[in-house]
Amino acid sequence: MNETISTILGHRSIRKFEDKPLSDEQIKTIVQCAQSASTSSFIQAYSIIGIKDAEKKRRLSAISGNQSYVENNGHFFVFCADLYRHSLIGEQEGREVLDSLESTEKFMVAVIDAALAAQNAAVAAESMGLGICYIGGLRNNLEEVQEVLSTPERVIPLFGMAVGYPAQDPGKKPRLPFSHVYHEDGYEQDLTVYMNGLEEYDREISAYYEERTSGKRRDTWSSQIAGMLEKKSRLYMKEFVTKNKIDLK
Amino acid sequence: MNETISTILGHRSIRKFEDKPLSDEQIKTIVQCAQSASTSSFIQAYSIIGIKDAEKKRRLSAISGNQSYVENNGHFFVFCADLYRHSLIGEQEGREVLDSLESTEKFMVAVIDAALAAQNAAVAAESMGLGICYIGGLRNNLEEVQEVLSTPERVIPLFGMAVGYPAQDPGKKPRLPFSHVYHEDGYEQDLTVYMNGLEEYDREISAYYEERTSGKRRDTWSSQIAGMLEKKSRLYMKEFVTKNKIDLK
Repeated sequence: MNETISTILGHRSIRKFEDKPLSDEQIKTIVQCAQSASTSSFIQAYSIIGIKDAEKKRRLSAISGNQSYVENNGHFFVFCADLYRHSLIGEQEGREVLDSLESTEKFMVAVIDAALAAQNAAVAAESMGLGICYIGGLRNNLEEVQEVLSTPERVIPLFGMAVGYPAQDPGKKPRLPFSHVYHEDGYEQDLTVYMNGLEEYDREISAYYEERTSGKRRDTWSSQIAGMLEKKSRLYMKEFVTKNKIDLK
Repeated sequence: MNETISTILGHRSIRKFEDKPLSDEQIKTIVQCAQSASTSSFIQAYSIIGIKDAEKKRRLSAISGNQSYVENNGHFFVFCADLYRHSLIGEQEGREVLDSLESTEKFMVAVIDAALAAQNAAVAAESMGLGICYIGGLRNNLEEVQEVLSTPERVIPLFGMAVGYPAQDPGKKPRLPFSHVYHEDGYEQDLTVYMNGLEEYDREISAYYEERTSGKRRDTWSSQIAGMLEKKSRLYMKEFVTKNKIDLK
């Protein structure tokens, strides 16, 4: 196993960091790695905002449900889907690009572009001995995130990423069985096989929680996820996205 | 610079592969790396379909605009946003999850989850000396992709990834200036600074194309992208996504 694969397989989210900022050189390397990711038809439909300002970090932490590691870390990145520059280019080049920009397809392109860049940043940071945690909690209130970051229209902040020197060493959480996530030549059509895979995984996760909590927590993945999904969260998203002129047409 | 960072910075898409399939062990390692990526609230809302069947590869290649490397490679992966298993879990657990699953927010979550997994797969493959190319062209006709892959409802194929032993050695394409993609503490608000960055990049890309084509091609990034965006492509996407019960509510 090479170093890169062992870095990737060793990933676990870090939620407690030493009080030590990343150097500008580290930040630059991480962003350059993000930029080296593939991008759909060379569109580069994302941007990254790094937060050093303590008050801004505090506000982003409050938005994310007061997760302390949003405030206390080595650096905090926000990854945005960004079609703003493409609208400027359209104007400049005298081309009619808005129908294209305001489509579900281009929204997907921008979200995927941003996520590919982010994961390169994550792997790069981890290869440097740093820890990371994605912060989807920013989506609790993107209006306020936009205000904090002064983003123009057609820029949708998607998630944050706290990066820093790890001050904890949590275990890895078992993932869905390989056979459940990876299918060959077509999706698994046998519902019994499919549900058996879920059951197997539920037993594994239940044992994992039980062991980690000395028997206090025993829930399965299915019950945890069904409970989470029953809560209707962030249902303002469609309105927000279309209001920001990345329309879902 | 460590090995991982040099792998990431060295990325360029490979569009010509040796006629040599990946081993099952290589495929397994790549998928396990994909699964090690972060996932929003542990939801794991994606799946991966690997294609070995020659006829299926041929059909996917035709859908993607007859890109030969979709057919001829070491292995072909399709990454899907997948909320199918979550709807089954909801039923099984007797929880009302459909409002949540059929929201723009969960669509974003599933797309991001799939993209993070894919980029881990890409970096892992490249670290093994393999080359990769993302294939967004599958989105030319997702109805047919679904038919080829027999995917159930709530599964949206997002893009493919051709992987294999490189049979070419293309150069790296310069990315947008660092200062254009990365902002500190807030988005760049000075339009002159912003447009100057684009101009600088246009000169760089123009010189890059001119050199690579011995003077035959000189277009800028702005003109290339504006021209691409003027073509209205894949405007069926919203209808497709909602029809597949990942609703954009």
